[in-house]
Parts: sequence; structure tokens; C-alpha cells
Amino acid sequence: MPASSHSSTSPSQVQRRTVETHQLANGLVLLAEPVATAESAAFTLMVPCGSSNDPASRLGLSNMLCDMVMRGAGDRDSRALINDLEVLGVERGESVGISQTSFSGATLADNLLDALAIYADIVLRPQLPAEQLDAAKMVCLQEIHGVEDEPSQKLMDELRRRTYLEPWGRTSHGDESGVEASTAADIKTQWSAHYRPNGAILGVAGKIDWDQLVELVESQFGAWEPVESAKPLEAQREKLSPHIDFEGNQCHIGISFPSVPYSDPKYLQAWAAVGVLSGGMSSRLFTEVREKRGLCYSVSASLQTQRARASVMCYAGTTSERAQETLDVTYGELIRLREGVLQSELQRLKARIKSGLIMQQESTSARSGSIARDWYHLARVRTLDELGRQVDELSAHSINAYLDEHPPNNFTFATLGPQALKIPV
Amino acid sequence: MPASSHSSTSPSQVQRRTVETHQLANGLVLLAEPVATAESAAFTLMVPCGSSNDPASRLGLSNMLCDMVMRGAGDRDSRALINDLEVLGVERGESVGISQTSFSGATLADNLLDALAIYADIVLRPQLPAEQLDAAKMVCLQEIHGVEDEPSQKLMDELRRRTYLEPWGRTSHGDESGVEASTAADIKTQWSAHYRPNGAILGVAGKIDWDQLVELVESQFGAWEPVESAKPLEAQREKLSPHIDFEGNQCHIGISFPSVPYSDPKYLQAWAAVGVLSGGMSSRLFTEVREKRGLCYSVSASLQTQRARASVMCYAGTTSERAQETLDVTYGELIRLREGVLQSELQRLKARIKSGLIMQQESTSARSGSIARDWYHLARVRTLDELGRQVDELSAHSINAYLDEHPPNNFTFATLGPQALKIPV
Repeated sequence: MPASSHSSTSPSQVQRRTVETHQLANGLVLLAEPVATAESAAFTLMVPCGSSNDPASRLGLSNMLCDMVMRGAGDRDSRALINDLEVLGVERGESVGISQTSFSGATLADNLLDALAIYADIVLRPQLPAEQLDAAKMVCLQEIHGVEDEPSQKLMDELRRRTYLEPWGRTSHGDESGVEASTAADIKTQWSAHYRPNGAILGVAGKIDWDQLVELVESQFGAWEPVESAKPLEAQREKLSPHIDFEGNQCHIGISFPSVPYSDPKYLQAWAAVGVLSGGMSSRLFTEVREKRGLCYSVSASLQTQRARASVMCYAGTTSERAQETLDVTYGELIRLREGVLQSELQRLKARIKSGLIMQQESTSARSGSIARDWYHLARVRTLDELGRQVDELSAHSINAYLDEHPPNNFTFATLGPQALKIPV
Repeated sequence: MPASSHSSTSPSQVQRRTVETHQLANGLVLLAEPVATAESAAFTLMVPCGSSNDPASRLGLSNMLCDMVMRGAGDRDSRALINDLEVLGVERGESVGISQTSFSGATLADNLLDALAIYADIVLRPQLPAEQLDAAKMVCLQEIHGVEDEPSQKLMDELRRRTYLEPWGRTSHGDESGVEASTAADIKTQWSAHYRPNGAILGVAGKIDWDQLVELVESQFGAWEPVESAKPLEAQREKLSPHIDFEGNQCHIGISFPSVPYSDPKYLQAWAAVGVLSGGMSSRLFTEVREKRGLCYSVSASLQTQRARASVMCYAGTTSERAQETLDVTYGELIRLREGVLQSELQRLKARIKSGLIMQQESTSARSGSIARDWYHLARVRTLDELGRQVDELSAHSINAYLDEHPPNNFTFATLGPQALKIPV
């Protein structure tokens, strides 16, 4: 049996790394965490264009724009653009969230600056070729149809829609009519209004030379013109029924409740409480729903945060016969969280978090995303060191004080399956 | 435009690391790649118990055993076992393949030896508590039912079933009747026969002390008794129709053709040909099926290798209306591969592989899995350095020579959706 001291992370394990910061005159924030032991470098470029910025009659427009900007930029047509990124060995991905589009990539450190120069073209000078609009539209429609075949995703989309005011519960892929209606002019307008440096963040981690990086970013992104953009308007949406009819043998259950966003001083406490609920194999949901009762093979909860609001989102998927019991047991665990967490649960959680920090430290991709996210939410970056100390200081007392002030409450339910379930009140 | 020299990896980028090897008297092979710059250590423990070892009337038994061994081992009951792994910060996962069960984990380097001692209990001294059999069975049944909700997975399961002789096309989760019928005695028999050191491999990567590791593994795994075990018998299975009826709007298409396994001298050529077909954004399938025609949002091919056989497995998911065209275009690309690959395609591919090697080098989890897999297939381990050189030497000529000898042929088809498609002959 290991002594508990084994699980604590000594300062030598969490490295003392610095994070460099530089803001361009146009507003773009450049962040970098140099990692001397790495041979790779990774970046995450966030631009302030998300599904909350889609016009109400063009849901899915930002997602379609994200597809279109990769179809040629600057002097490179679609084929040359992709070719040159691949020749640089860039492992890339794009994702569209509620408020941001993220372009991320990782490659050999020597290729980083060339790759970033291409991304400057992608966001500043996309060709948005009209003759490729139909193909992009087809891809986006296929994505929407694909969700019909993934009922767990469909259910969580529906839960988010029921949890938030408009536009905060939207999905990035939008809807069929919005995508169908989108024109080349809509794409261009969306790009002009929302691909802008004020509000954009570029996070880099890996083997880098900071001075060279600043110089490259200044020269490639310096001419990007800031644009003022109206904030999305909030609106109540029509009340939706908690149940969605869906053929099949399985039932998918979603429950959400309000939490505090990333920038809240109590965020770590809120996040730790969810960690006790879900995450490890000794977490409450896993133990009570899956291990003891075998009610389902998949049950989880996570704290999903936007800049100004956050919710805990729970999911369980099971057979129709066991659906009501699964819902009741899962809901019971959410209610029981009001009674607080135990010291022993916190000890396991801290060990998991510490281990996760070490893994993150060894991934340049994870770090580039993490520092960009920190800036987005906090307008500053926490070092790994600081994160380690915050975790050390976390106490069951502080988590329970948070839960006293914010007991799980005001639940939203969504179920998807062949029959409706009894929703607790 | 970057010079192509940018994309090549200099010796300083792929590190010259050694891989240590030690075989215990009972047959267990211990491999370790020390990584001086890491603070983590990761392990992959493969035991020779896979779904091909399931009795024909107990399909899913190895999967159920894998669930059961985590429910208490040595002196620890289910709860203590999970608690102690979590207190050590072990990020863990288990998976059951056709010939192996893999237990993998990563944690702080200081906790590695304590974690391995617990895994010795898990494989040598599982409690297999009879009173938890029903819960384990429920979890396994839920997993089987869950596939009904994931038509893309269901389709690929059906494709594999049609591609191979019995037992090589099995799924790990088995079937309902096999899981229902499994008793505590079956579980115990499966464990006795197949959790054995002869044929087991333990790969470790990270910040390790080799001498200490050997000592720990000798003391914890040395008493594990070898068992001789009969090889699974091959058998023809009844001929299955290529089409599986499935309600909904989407159609899922699978195509496979024979390839060469990992240990074949031409494996790298076979694998590179598939890399030209699928993998990057300029790959043929992505370009022809998704980008140009927008036929689907997901299309891919991969070389899936077992020890003595391998296949290329292609998948495309689309709407019913576009299904026939998607199948025809995808199939057309497989046929076109017979004509060979271009130098420019190889150049991009090499850049991607090199970049992937650097990323792998920075992940202790990836390396522990990779060295264990190498040993399983080759009975030796290739260093990163050697891999880098093999990639450097890869030529379009050698790939095309391979394709001349092994043109894509003898295709197997599976489709899943509301209506059958016309299968090319």
C-alpha cells in the first residue's frame, strides 16, 4: 500500500516554466511557453467567431466558414495550401465553438514559423472560392445528418439547447435550412465581421525562440485590421419538451445544472466537485451507476464553461428497460453532492489532477491550447507551477463551502429514446 | 514556400534512445525506453488473451474477464484496488483485441513501481468475485446494446466479420448469448488458460531506473506460472450478405482488401500506400470523396494488422441519396491505387510520418505501447532512430513495386442502411 506522500507532486516534477506574452497593436495576443526538452512546437490560434455569431437564419455559418478558409488562402489555391501544410508535417485540426474558432497544429519545431505564416494567410487572406461553396455545403450538411446517427451526441445537443438562453445553447453545425441558405456573400460577411485580431489569441508551446516568434507574428499578423463587432443578443427560446422520440432499443439521458464559469474565483472548487462525481473509476457516478448496478456502460458528468456562464452536463446511455432506474440513480447522485465531498475522495482527485498536469506538461499541443484558453477566460496565463500550487491548496472544506453556496439545483433534463421517462421535480 | 529540406528530420530531432530488454524465466518480456527528459512513466502490459480465445459459445468472455480482474486483486477488494490506483495518479485503460488484452497506464515516474506491483496482482491474483458477476455481465451487455446505437461501429464490426475466417473477424464484446451464458467458472477457466507469462509483454517508457525496474518485475511477476495453450482453430464461417438493413437516413459503407501483416518485410510499403489513400487532407479519399464532391463528412482507410494476417479497411458514411456514388468513387480510388503513387504524394506522406514520430517521441504512453507492439509482431524493438531511417529510405519505386505484386483485389463489402447498394464486381 503506497504511502500518500507518493501521490504528491514535488516542485521538481512540475517544471518551473515561464509563459511569454506579447500583444500586437491590433489586439492579437501572442503567448508562448518555451519547452527546452521538446523537439516539437504546437500552436492554437483562436479567432472570435463562433456559432453565437451566426445570424439566426444562417445557423451553421461559422462552421461553414471554417471549412471554406481551408480551401485556399493568399497565393495558394486549395490544393497548394493543403500540400504546403502537409509538407511541413503539420498535424492540424479546426473546431468551432460557441464563441471561437480554433485552428491548432503541431509540427517539428523548425517548421513552426513557416506554418504560422500559412495560418496568417488562412485567417487574413482566405480565397473563399465561390466554386467550392457547394462542396463545402455538402460537407456541412453531411455533418448535420451524421448527428442523426449518433444519438448520444444528438441528446447532448438537445440538452444544451434546453439549458441556455439563445444563442448560448447552439451547436456549431447549425441546421439544414441555415446551411442551405448560406451564400458566398454570407460567408464573406461573416469572415469580415468576426475573423479579427481584437479578441484573437495565439498560444504556442514547444522548442521556440521567443524573439524570432514575436518578429514573425508581428510581420505576418501585424496588418490584420481590428473590427468592432456587436455582441450577440440574448433571448429566451420557446420551451422545449424534455423528451425526444427516437426509434431503437437504447435510451439516452442528459441532466444539467448551473455552475460557475472558468473566471470565477470558486471555479476550481466547482470543478473538483464534478471530479468527485465523475472522472475516475472510483468516482460516484461510475461506482453507483456502472460498477454496482451495471445500469449502463457509459455515464459521465463534466463542467462545461463559456466565458460568462457554465453548466455541469451529465450523460448516461442505457437500454429502455433500465432507463428510469438509471435516471433516478444518476439524479440521486447529483442531489447527494449537496451533502459535500469526503477527504478521501479529494485525496484521489488530487492525485489524478497532479498526474494529469505532468502529462499535460509533456504535450506541447495540450500546453498551447491550455495557455490560449487561460487567456481567453482570465486575460492572463497560469503557469504549470501555479496550477500545481492551486491544486495543493484545494481542501474538502473549501469545496464543501462552495457546494453549500451553490447546491446542485435548477436541473434541466433531456431524454432521447422510444419512450418518455418520469422526470423528478 | 518552404524548401523541402525543412520537412526532413535531422538526427538531432529523432532522439537516439535505447530500448532495454529482459526476459523472465517464465517467458514474460520486459522492455523499457528510458526518457531522461520526462517526469512521467507509462506502461503497456499485454497478456495473450483475446476474443479469438473465447469459446464459440461464450463470445465476449475475454472482455468480461477484463472487467472482472479490475474488481479486486491480491489483498485488495474492488474498492481498495481502484482507490490505490487512483491515489497513485494512474491514468489507465484496458482494451481487448483479437489476441491480446492490454492494460495500460501512465503516472508520475515515482509511482511507476507501486503501480506495476498492483498490476501484478491484477493479472496473477484477481479475486474474480462471484457476487459482482451480474454487474459485470450487465456492463458487457450494455456495451453490446450500445453498438446498436453506433451504426458506423456496427458496420465496421460486420465488415471485419465478413473479411476474415473464424475466429479472426470477431469483436471483443461478443454477443448477447455468449455473455449471458458466461459463469463464474468460465471466467476463472479463461483466466487460468490465457493470463500467462509466456506470450505476455510489458513495455515501459519514461523516467525510469532500469535496474530497479528489472528487480521489481522479477519479484512481482517472477512467480507467474507459464501455461501451454492451444491455438485457436480456423474455420470458414457461413456466407453473409453484404447488406445489413438499418433504419434511418444514413448509409454506412465498408470495403476491405487483403494486405500484409506488420512483420512482413514490405509492411512499410503497404502502410505507405494506405497513407497516400487516407490520412492527410491531401490524401486521395479525402480529396476525391469529401473535398471535391462533398459526398460525406467522414471517409477513411487504415491498414489493420493482426500477427499473421492484415487488411485495409475503408469506411465512408453518407446519406442514402449519395450512398451509391460514394461507394463507387471510394471503390474507384482503391482500384486506382494499382497504378501506383506519385513522388509528390510520398513527399507529403514522409513529412507527416516524421512529424508523427516526433510527437510519439514526446509521449511516454505512445512509446510504451509502440515498443510492446513491436515485440509482439517482430520479437524485437525498433528504436525511434531506426524508424526514422526506414522512413527516409522509403521510395515511390519500392511502394509501386509492392503495389504491382499486391494490387488491391479480392474486395469484401459491407453496407448498412435503409437499402442495399449495387456492389461492383
